[in-house]
Amino acid sequence: MKGAFYQGNKSFYVGDSPPRPPGRGEVRLNIAYGGICGTDVHIYLGHMDHRTTLPQVIGHEMSGTVAEVGQGVVDFKLGDKAVVRPVVSCGRCPACKMGHYNVCHQINVLGVDTPGCFQGNWTVPAETLHRLPDDIDIKLAALVEPVAVGAHAVRLGQVTENEHVVVIGAGPIGILVALESKLKGAHVFVSEINPFRINLAREFGLEVVNPKETDLPAYVAEKTGGAGADVVFEVTGLAPGAEMMTRLARTRGRIVIVGIFAEPVPVSLGQFFLRELRLRGVRLYEPEDFETAIPLVAARAVPFERLISDVRPLERIQDTFEEIERGANFMKVLLKCSD
Amino acid sequence: MKGAFYQGNKSFYVGDSPPRPPGRGEVRLNIAYGGICGTDVHIYLGHMDHRTTLPQVIGHEMSGTVAEVGQGVVDFKLGDKAVVRPVVSCGRCPACKMGHYNVCHQINVLGVDTPGCFQGNWTVPAETLHRLPDDIDIKLAALVEPVAVGAHAVRLGQVTENEHVVVIGAGPIGILVALESKLKGAHVFVSEINPFRINLAREFGLEVVNPKETDLPAYVAEKTGGAGADVVFEVTGLAPGAEMMTRLARTRGRIVIVGIFAEPVPVSLGQFFLRELRLRGVRLYEPEDFETAIPLVAARAVPFERLISDVRPLERIQDTFEEIERGANFMKVLLKCSD
Repeated sequence: MKGAFYQGNKSFYVGDSPPRPPGRGEVRLNIAYGGICGTDVHIYLGHMDHRTTLPQVIGHEMSGTVAEVGQGVVDFKLGDKAVVRPVVSCGRCPACKMGHYNVCHQINVLGVDTPGCFQGNWTVPAETLHRLPDDIDIKLAALVEPVAVGAHAVRLGQVTENEHVVVIGAGPIGILVALESKLKGAHVFVSEINPFRINLAREFGLEVVNPKETDLPAYVAEKTGGAGADVVFEVTGLAPGAEMMTRLARTRGRIVIVGIFAEPVPVSLGQFFLRELRLRGVRLYEPEDFETAIPLVAARAVPFERLISDVRPLERIQDTFEEIERGANFMKVLLKCSD
Repeated sequence: MKGAFYQGNKSFYVGDSPPRPPGRGEVRLNIAYGGICGTDVHIYLGHMDHRTTLPQVIGHEMSGTVAEVGQGVVDFKLGDKAVVRPVVSCGRCPACKMGHYNVCHQINVLGVDTPGCFQGNWTVPAETLHRLPDDIDIKLAALVEPVAVGAHAVRLGQVTENEHVVVIGAGPIGILVALESKLKGAHVFVSEINPFRINLAREFGLEVVNPKETDLPAYVAEKTGGAGADVVFEVTGLAPGAEMMTRLARTRGRIVIVGIFAEPVPVSLGQFFLRELRLRGVRLYEPEDFETAIPLVAARAVPFERLISDVRPLERIQDTFEEIERGANFMKVLLKCSD
């Protein structure tokens, strides 16, 4: 069985990755497709070398089929379609004790801290598995993980029907947050400056505003009777998004930080005072977010396939990451992990 | 009747301020004591000249007695002790329509946007009045307004029994937030660097840490079994407080912005992601916060009198503000507004 190993210095090699027999409580999956996430790009760029152990198979978005079950596993059997919620929590830290496993102090993100899914076989704890319906499109199922990220953000953002939502940034997660907010019955505006992403978001039927061409705060104010947005999702992780977010939210509105900020950025805390704004960060997902995401993908609640820019054999991982680094107009690229 | 008029350029004059007869729905109060707030200092320093109309009587913390009632006022009669909740909202803006009158888009803060309480008589809408018990100490009653600020912050911070709370900054509001959190049954730590404020906070029985001498995040981690604080109140309005706040809160902990930040400051939004932190700004108070504050002051739930650094005749307003500007070790100074 093959696997794609990150070996540092922006470099992968594809080589033999022998299946690891599942131990007690584990399951070995045959991986169908693996999706490339922004986090994988950060790993490729060397930003997360403190967490990886080289050479390491990375990847954490996937779909697959149960190939072997370890002792004590009763919930899954050979041939079951499944996705992995790639998080193993310690169960003992203060966050885990409060039930917040997704923010475990010693979190193990599979594909980051330990081996991932860009390989033909992947052996993981059974507790990380979520069953898929038999008739799901196994290619689309590789999108369940990012759809669960969106579901988590929308759930913690408490988006409800008829609320006005602004999503800053129309990458894959931004588009999913926007679409999942729309499924909740919200009125959604997307802020984006990249023409490729603007077009794609519009193909999804989203209302997109380019803040370089339109006065976004004035636009949102006009569309909300002067109130401002009920919920603002910051999904860029960049300073201009942080500057904009406080100008869009209504009094007591909710700002949700989905984007990953590498460094502190200026934030207008004075606006938080003046308007009693609220803000929360969201990270990863909890099991219920996968249970929300799976039926959405299975039912094709939105045309998820449009998010898939290309499907490539695992062997093309190196040139694909190089293309992404050069700024290729990709939304989501899937790697075919087994033949 | 006398009044202290701010006339710009860090200057007050004390002169005649004839009582204004109450119109329909208004009440004229005889002002006993007025407290000097940080906002008054900002006005004195000229930071808020865009809101004041010179010359203007300022001041919004006070205690007094009903001296005359206008037509249609049935809830108050001559001689009633009362405090004013110095906020008049428009009732028509999107914030008011949602019931958030304290963040009204066209808010009128009495003593800032319109004449205030540093005068012998003050005529205000009856709807801004809160009745005081007859036996309340009328001097302490001038503290009801800042106690209500604390009550609002603690209420929106959802402080509950046995939670760990850190208050950054031990000015009058910081101390009140700390004391009111303690009254809720929380374990409270105060962070302060000023020796005068450290001592005063300790006289109130508060546990104070000087972050210049002690590694505060390590201290809070140790005191909370590695978890971090449930609630962090930022009450300095300064960049070091904003830098510190994200290092103290537990996963999914609540940060409450009470301090007023004049400019955007660097905030570690990455920490909000990693720990799913929550943050909210709080401003002023709502009627229920006065109803919380009044019994606390009436019952002397804590030795509020220790907050009062001095009581001075209104005529000394100019030199008092000059002393404050020079950094005098004052907590709260009261001005005696009538003889």
